[in-house]
Amino acid sequence: MKTVLQDALRQVASEIIAVLSDDPFPAAVYPECLCSAVRSYPVRGGKRIRPALVLWTCGALGGDVRKALNAAAAVEIYHSWTLVHDDIIDEDEVRRGLPTTHVELASHAAAAYKRDKKACDKFGCDMAILAGDIQQAWAIDLLLRSTELGCDPALVMELVRRLQSTVNRGLISGEALDVELPMRELNKVTRAEVIKTIVGKTVCLLQFCLQTGGAIALGSTDFNRPELKNLADYANAMGIAFQLRDDYLGIFGDFKTFGKPLASDFQEGKPTLLFLDAMEHLPEAGQKELLALTGLPEYPMETVRKIRALLRDSGAADRLLKEISGYTDQALVCLNALPDNSYRQLLIDLTAYMLDREV
Amino acid sequence: MKTVLQDALRQVASEIIAVLSDDPFPAAVYPECLCSAVRSYPVRGGKRIRPALVLWTCGALGGDVRKALNAAAAVEIYHSWTLVHDDIIDEDEVRRGLPTTHVELASHAAAAYKRDKKACDKFGCDMAILAGDIQQAWAIDLLLRSTELGCDPALVMELVRRLQSTVNRGLISGEALDVELPMRELNKVTRAEVIKTIVGKTVCLLQFCLQTGGAIALGSTDFNRPELKNLADYANAMGIAFQLRDDYLGIFGDFKTFGKPLASDFQEGKPTLLFLDAMEHLPEAGQKELLALTGLPEYPMETVRKIRALLRDSGAADRLLKEISGYTDQALVCLNALPDNSYRQLLIDLTAYMLDREV
Repeated sequence: MKTVLQDALRQVASEIIAVLSDDPFPAAVYPECLCSAVRSYPVRGGKRIRPALVLWTCGALGGDVRKALNAAAAVEIYHSWTLVHDDIIDEDEVRRGLPTTHVELASHAAAAYKRDKKACDKFGCDMAILAGDIQQAWAIDLLLRSTELGCDPALVMELVRRLQSTVNRGLISGEALDVELPMRELNKVTRAEVIKTIVGKTVCLLQFCLQTGGAIALGSTDFNRPELKNLADYANAMGIAFQLRDDYLGIFGDFKTFGKPLASDFQEGKPTLLFLDAMEHLPEAGQKELLALTGLPEYPMETVRKIRALLRDSGAADRLLKEISGYTDQALVCLNALPDNSYRQLLIDLTAYMLDREV
Repeated sequence: MKTVLQDALRQVASEIIAVLSDDPFPAAVYPECLCSAVRSYPVRGGKRIRPALVLWTCGALGGDVRKALNAAAAVEIYHSWTLVHDDIIDEDEVRRGLPTTHVELASHAAAAYKRDKKACDKFGCDMAILAGDIQQAWAIDLLLRSTELGCDPALVMELVRRLQSTVNRGLISGEALDVELPMRELNKVTRAEVIKTIVGKTVCLLQFCLQTGGAIALGSTDFNRPELKNLADYANAMGIAFQLRDDYLGIFGDFKTFGKPLASDFQEGKPTLLFLDAMEHLPEAGQKELLALTGLPEYPMETVRKIRALLRDSGAADRLLKEISGYTDQALVCLNALPDNSYRQLLIDLTAYMLDREV
């Protein structure tokens, strides 16, 4: 990562942590374990990509970035609550190097109450559902308090409305598709459904980040304005490119730098464009072979190599790289339409970093 | 129930159903099963007490009830989403005579996908978490759309802010205490903690209903105004009286009319004021006997009778009835301070019905 970008991201992270650690909202939550759970993800490490997008877009369009600080912190909490609920759903145990919220709460229960493991695990999930529920409200409360930083109340109201209609619905529907598609027969899922999942899970909130920064800068929530439409297009291209790259690295990446076990999408039976494209282009024997490599209990390197070969032979790997490259170009074209200043440069550097990181 | 009250409640129910069935919000939710789940509780039967409180309070204070219709529908959805998540947490299977959301979704999965029961049950809970998450957003979106009915935007913004700070935090913290208290040793729970649970779970949203109706009528969100403080006092007294009466009926009521199995609080190890008071006043042998009657696998009538005898002998039952009666009087005193009109009469009749229903 470029030093300038790294320093700027560090600066955003420290500003967001400052806003969130000092924020009075969670203090009134009880019991104590729920109060801690509500603060947990928002004050953990993490790159704070979303707040950076809000602030830098605001700056790039000539806005006062200080006015966008509560909105930037709000999108971070909004992202947090979806992660808390997602981690329950996916039964994930680690988030940003620490136990996930439901695991943290289950450990608290094991230490605090004389109950068996099953009761403590259930307590962890139950409380984590409630922690996410409060975080959703916290995000809205903080976004509303953008008026205290000088944002126009009518503009803030439109942003809340957008977040709680288009964005929430899209984001949660995307997560729901992510739960639903693996329940179906893998080879009957369509490309359109996979794209819909990505747009819901990843693009919706990114678009909100960009458009919020833009709206605060321009003092307008007319999302049909060319500047705001351009930002939405950027978020769409960047979000899809990022997710497709993540899918690619999930198979072809290096385990150590990728951070997740390879082929986890295959193991969990999650359809990806990479998989669907290979199934479409492989001869029948290859299709059968690839399908038989889904849902296995373990994925030793030998199995991963077999998957890689099938994805390469079918041409799917190359086509995916080309697609990623197309979306990356689109994202950069959108950014080039912004006024030429240091915030635009940060957005360009961030995009290059996000989309280039391993390949 | 008085015929006038019954007709008025029916009228509210049909208005709320009309608003919610026609509302465009859920249509954009996917997949289809999640879309249905989001609509499910809001359009089911139910007495619609909360919307009635919003509308009638608005009317009693001389406001235009039509302006409060979106707010009334919004509190119903807000109540719904907490029920959806609560039903997962409590593992309840029936709500208003139909399967709970997670059970409905599990049945859908069993019919739609070739997966085992465990996978379908998990699908049901996962999707129900997401359904509640969307409903929370729907409630906010609908409340914001009160501006379309002529409510002042600044007033609506304050209502959203109150709902997503004080009310959400109190309500969810109350639910969390309801999860946490049974994890502890029952006889170490305090009376203050039980009251805090009731205020959180029941009073917070009731207060919001009353104050929203009042705020729309008065065109003011100064919650320190005597009229709005009086409404909050009413909600506090009514909510506590209602919950204490529910606790009482849970032991002394008639199974058929109460609708829930008797002594379920004892079975689930949920501390009630009734239980704590009895423990405080019983001799040591009686305390041991009562404690031994918690957490049993079954509660045949003979066991319920033993519990009843201990609660009566300790004087706890009589003291509880006196307390309920005190709160009921307080609630009615608050209502008597409202202008004398037909809406006030409906509020008085509703209160009498809610607090008298079985005893």
